[in-house]
Amino acid sequence: MISINVEDKFKLVTDFWKPRLIGELNGQLVKLAKLKGSFVWHSHENEDELFYVHQGTLYMEFRDKTEVVEAGNIIIVPKGVEHNPYTIDDEEVWVMLFEPAETLHTGTVEHERTHNNQEWI
Amino acid sequence: MISINVEDKFKLVTDFWKPRLIGELNGQLVKLAKLKGSFVWHSHENEDELFYVHQGTLYMEFRDKTEVVEAGNIIIVPKGVEHNPYTIDDEEVWVMLFEPAETLHTGTVEHERTHNNQEWI
Repeated sequence: MISINVEDKFKLVTDFWKPRLIGELNGQLVKLAKLKGSFVWHSHENEDELFYVHQGTLYMEFRDKTEVVEAGNIIIVPKGVEHNPYTIDDEEVWVMLFEPAETLHTGTVEHERTHNNQEWI
Repeated sequence: MISINVEDKFKLVTDFWKPRLIGELNGQLVKLAKLKGSFVWHSHENEDELFYVHQGTLYMEFRDKTEVVEAGNIIIVPKGVEHNPYTIDDEEVWVMLFEPAETLHTGTVEHERTHNNQEWI
C-alpha cells in the first residue's frame, strides 16, 4: 500500500525490450519497458496484453494494419493475435504493461530478445 | 485492437465518483473516474484494486495511514484492506482504475454514492 512513482521507476530501466516489474494484483503484473526499434512477431495464446504509452509514439503492427499509439494512450492486444511493437526515427518509447503473471515475453516464439526472467525494480 | 485516447475519454466523464469503462482484458476492467471530496470507507473482499493518478493528487486513507499519490503515480490496494480515497482543496483528481470485472464499487458497503451499473464510454 505504497505509492509507486512511475517516473522514478523508469529511471531504473536502462536498456530496451526488457520489461521490469513494478506491481502485482489479481494475478496480473504491472511492468515498465523502454522500447526502441522493432521487436519480434509473436502472440500470447491465453493472455490479453495492455500497453499504456508513457512517453513517445508506439507503433503496434498487426497482420492487417498498424495502430499508432500516442503518449497517454492505451492499446489492448487480445490473446492469440499476432503483433509486433516498433518505434520509428530512433525514438525511445516508454510503456507500462498490464498482463497475467504467466505471460511469456514473446509467447510461443523463442528469440534472442526473449526475456522471461523479469526482475522487480 | 484500437488505440484508446485516455484524455479524450476523460472528457466524456462529467461527474464525480462514477467510474466509466474503457477497456477489458483477462477478466479485468480498465476504468476512468473523476474524484472530488471524500468517498466512503469500504473494502473489496476478493479483489485487489489499482489506481493510476492521471491528474491531481489523490489521498488514499487507510486505517493506519494516509498515502499521497501524485499525478503519474500508482497505488495498489490489496483485497480486504479498508480504504477511503479523497481529494483536498476542492481539487478534481482524475484516476484510471484497473480491477476485476466482478469488483463492487463500494465493496460490501451500500452508500448513496455506490454506483455498480457502470457504463462504457
